[in-house]
Amino acid sequence: MSKILDMVHIPKDLKVLSRKELQQLCREIREQMIVRLGAAGGHVGSNLAVIEATVALHYVFNSPSDKLVFDVSHQCYTHKLLTGRKAAYLDPARFYSVSGFTNPEESEHDIFSIGHTSTAISLACGLAKGRDLRGETNRVIAVVGDGSLSGGEAFEGLNHAATLGSNLIIVINDNDMSIAENHGGLYRNLRLLRETNGKADCNFFRALGFDYLFVRDGNDFNEIADALESVKDTDHPVVVHMCTVKGKGYRYAEEERESWHYMGPFDIATGKPLHGAVPTKTYEGLTSRFLADRMRKDPTVTAITAGTPKVLGFEAELRQQFPTQFVDVGIAEGHAVAFSSGIAKNGGKPVFGLSSSFLQRAYDQLSQDLALNRSPAVILVFFAGISQGSQTHMGVFDIPLAMSIPNLIYLAPTCKEEYLRMLEWAMDQNESPVMIRVPGIETVSRNAELLRDYARPARYEIAVHGTDVAILALGKFFHLGSKVREKLETEYGIHATLINPRYITDVDEKTLRALPEYGHRLVVTLEDGVTDGGFGEKIAGFYGNSPMKVLSFGARKEFVNHVTVEEQYNRYHLTANQIISDVIEALSSK
Amino acid sequence: MSKILDMVHIPKDLKVLSRKELQQLCREIREQMIVRLGAAGGHVGSNLAVIEATVALHYVFNSPSDKLVFDVSHQCYTHKLLTGRKAAYLDPARFYSVSGFTNPEESEHDIFSIGHTSTAISLACGLAKGRDLRGETNRVIAVVGDGSLSGGEAFEGLNHAATLGSNLIIVINDNDMSIAENHGGLYRNLRLLRETNGKADCNFFRALGFDYLFVRDGNDFNEIADALESVKDTDHPVVVHMCTVKGKGYRYAEEERESWHYMGPFDIATGKPLHGAVPTKTYEGLTSRFLADRMRKDPTVTAITAGTPKVLGFEAELRQQFPTQFVDVGIAEGHAVAFSSGIAKNGGKPVFGLSSSFLQRAYDQLSQDLALNRSPAVILVFFAGISQGSQTHMGVFDIPLAMSIPNLIYLAPTCKEEYLRMLEWAMDQNESPVMIRVPGIETVSRNAELLRDYARPARYEIAVHGTDVAILALGKFFHLGSKVREKLETEYGIHATLINPRYITDVDEKTLRALPEYGHRLVVTLEDGVTDGGFGEKIAGFYGNSPMKVLSFGARKEFVNHVTVEEQYNRYHLTANQIISDVIEALSSK
Repeated sequence: MSKILDMVHIPKDLKVLSRKELQQLCREIREQMIVRLGAAGGHVGSNLAVIEATVALHYVFNSPSDKLVFDVSHQCYTHKLLTGRKAAYLDPARFYSVSGFTNPEESEHDIFSIGHTSTAISLACGLAKGRDLRGETNRVIAVVGDGSLSGGEAFEGLNHAATLGSNLIIVINDNDMSIAENHGGLYRNLRLLRETNGKADCNFFRALGFDYLFVRDGNDFNEIADALESVKDTDHPVVVHMCTVKGKGYRYAEEERESWHYMGPFDIATGKPLHGAVPTKTYEGLTSRFLADRMRKDPTVTAITAGTPKVLGFEAELRQQFPTQFVDVGIAEGHAVAFSSGIAKNGGKPVFGLSSSFLQRAYDQLSQDLALNRSPAVILVFFAGISQGSQTHMGVFDIPLAMSIPNLIYLAPTCKEEYLRMLEWAMDQNESPVMIRVPGIETVSRNAELLRDYARPARYEIAVHGTDVAILALGKFFHLGSKVREKLETEYGIHATLINPRYITDVDEKTLRALPEYGHRLVVTLEDGVTDGGFGEKIAGFYGNSPMKVLSFGARKEFVNHVTVEEQYNRYHLTANQIISDVIEALSSK
Repeated sequence: MSKILDMVHIPKDLKVLSRKELQQLCREIREQMIVRLGAAGGHVGSNLAVIEATVALHYVFNSPSDKLVFDVSHQCYTHKLLTGRKAAYLDPARFYSVSGFTNPEESEHDIFSIGHTSTAISLACGLAKGRDLRGETNRVIAVVGDGSLSGGEAFEGLNHAATLGSNLIIVINDNDMSIAENHGGLYRNLRLLRETNGKADCNFFRALGFDYLFVRDGNDFNEIADALESVKDTDHPVVVHMCTVKGKGYRYAEEERESWHYMGPFDIATGKPLHGAVPTKTYEGLTSRFLADRMRKDPTVTAITAGTPKVLGFEAELRQQFPTQFVDVGIAEGHAVAFSSGIAKNGGKPVFGLSSSFLQRAYDQLSQDLALNRSPAVILVFFAGISQGSQTHMGVFDIPLAMSIPNLIYLAPTCKEEYLRMLEWAMDQNESPVMIRVPGIETVSRNAELLRDYARPARYEIAVHGTDVAILALGKFFHLGSKVREKLETEYGIHATLINPRYITDVDEKTLRALPEYGHRLVVTLEDGVTDGGFGEKIAGFYGNSPMKVLSFGARKEFVNHVTVEEQYNRYHLTANQIISDVIEALSSK
């Protein structure tokens, strides 16, 4: 069956194939890709869309001397399959031997480790400049999805790339979808260009100074291969605007493009997920229900996403109920923060939700547009903490990121009751920008002591009064702290104090000052984030000029790629037993 | 002479004036503005360019119910003059009574405190959305310079604003200049539009879906007033593309637009600076001489700026000597970092220099595009530390910002010899992205112990061996530390150890572990930055589980607007006497 695929291992193998064989190869790859996606899950839509284009890229260009950069790089499966990593797509035993993003540690054909959107044009522009400085002649190609174009970095890259004056080919893979539907004025122009076969006078890319080539059907191997051949040796920057179909060749993925952007393992015949048991009681669901209720009661409440509406729990159906109150600004986290600040300044009630990993795309806006102006917008940070995900999507940097921004209150609820109370307060107050660190995926309940308001100064919750040791267990890690406390009591007879700090950015000086007075000589901090610049260091700094000892637990400062949470907990001494052993040692030393 | 100006105090006063009187008012304002700029300095070019437009805006619209947002807001002088703050522009005794940027604490006509570029469209978009949610009808106007359009946030804002579906007027103030000349493909389109009186088919703003109006001469009051009248009550987003002359009406400023972007006090007749003694031995000059020398010897070396070439010491003449090796990417710090990463990955030697305050616009790129990929690019951070500047341009956040990014080495030289050695090493190595914190404006020499290489692990310099107290004095503050040490010795007989940590991001565990062994019981950290998430907290964290006391000195986490450095030092206990008094107290307490 897969006889062409059998002959292809590295890009060079493509050069000897006929166009007919190459087309056959695309069919074989698609068939096999669907099998592999069904078994292992992954980014279904984008990878099925770019099979022909990827085969054409490797047929026309000479990787790795020619440099291919994939934006987000979640669409790199065919690229990996063609560059020495075929087994990872054919052999079920090796399906997990490669990551879902380009990774230089895997292959010289992967130039960058990439996972955030909108970066490829800038990176490719740099590769081209490096080449020019060295007087070399290799070609540089960036492959960028339409959804990525709304991000500011993509525009900054386009604006500069247009003036580069040497070979740079930017393939815009336009499947008329971001993760969800596209939002923004640019997408009207892409539509106009699609509808006019690229012939409309008003052309975003030409306006920026690019040479421009339209490819009507990027899933037609010959068409995209011919287009790439024609621009291959250009001496100036060219945009190849290629239309593809997201999920091409797999019915369910073509029909339900948002759901099939990313999918866990599924049954190919029915499209049904194989591991059906997704948690039903999630913080996303809780959030969207809470916000929808608020939005119905108060027309000034608005929920905002930067291209990831489901992170905030807003499925398509729910979004449609709020055509003006639910706003997707496109993948543009910086704008979303500034936009939220503007709404709050003019009497609206904005709640912007995003993943921890993408918060870092909005540092300047958090500081200047939001915090400096004390705009009472609410930002919900999802997927924060140690996870098994890609090194490009880690959730451990948001605490240090927020720590040094004045005026900003960052709260860490420990359970759903506290989360909702904090969210309610944040939306009702008019004094401060407030961020809330959503405590995990599945909701957890506890009898937390809730405050009427969470304005400054910080007031920590003393959940259990004890002595000797005080455990400051932040957010989700409150439960770890609780376990440590119990074990210290039952196994060592140590009656530790357990504290829920509630505030990430703030020290409750009164409580901390009282701890030595009540016989504590060791403070333990637990945070689900990198310790450098984090909460524990702040507490250590507070006690720096006192005999109080401080032991801080959290993640090490390192990029971590698909390591199990368990292994990371072990590595960072974040299991109850390791913490207890460190505590006992600290108590017994001088 | 100034009889129209005498009648104008608030925007309402404009409404009763005839067009002729309004034109006369513009002339009077310009005349007075030049007097005020000569006496007090300021952003000369942009403020002289927008006098007619600002008078027209306040004549046509009704601030503060209509909302005016100025991008960067460095061009707000006429706006301030017209909104109750006239004395600050007429009365020499009150010239310093207002800041150079919009500030809500000064007036309800200033909606945001703004100082970074490219934010106004996003903020205005939020104001418009807030208005729509509340069912109000006030108008929203953003005034944006052409130079600001290269920043990603401006594009993210434009992309979203185009779909807003309600009143939003974006005035593009096109004076064909950024701080220096413009760079990027977009500027070719602006030129095309200027050359065709806005009639070119290929129109960047129309491509994004905006209605578009061209104003040939934005320094012609009638023309800009008529244009604004015509779009005033638009029910959809409109771009008013207005051409102005930077420095309009003041000969020297029109002729030398880059030099006159910002100017200290000057003699109006000659255009000569009044306070001639600018430092000649600066780190900028040192840097540009060093880099130019390197660039001549090695064609792969490239110096990069994001719209502020003079920060890196590259005056126009020097830039012209390196047409390919000096790159201005436009105001686009995120792209500049990613671009540098790409260059480094393809064999070039990029050195990107920028102000501390703007580093925060590139956090995600520092983390993902640069550090994750271990690209050996060099980033020079200028104007770091406590300053008397605006709250929008503070230089105290770069240390915590860099602290939690893996793989990134951030170095703090104490003098020019160490700075050059670190820069040399950073450019010669191929392992790590390296940032260097430029230690001030004027160069300082000392006999620092230089390392052959500054790779990890960190090795602190023990400049003076002592006992009891160890002073870890970072970068520029080494000299403060040295003063403290001397005074401790001469006045208290305490022989303190003085350490130059060299590394901001890294702990020298060996040296720190040895300190208690050599009889130290107190460590003092001095850093010219905000302490939250900074160097001192890291050191306190290191010693958390030991009897070593740590006293950390640095800036408090707060936005500070034009407070003298001396006053801030006093406020933060950063004078030698205050530090010594705190040290003595700490040594004598338990």
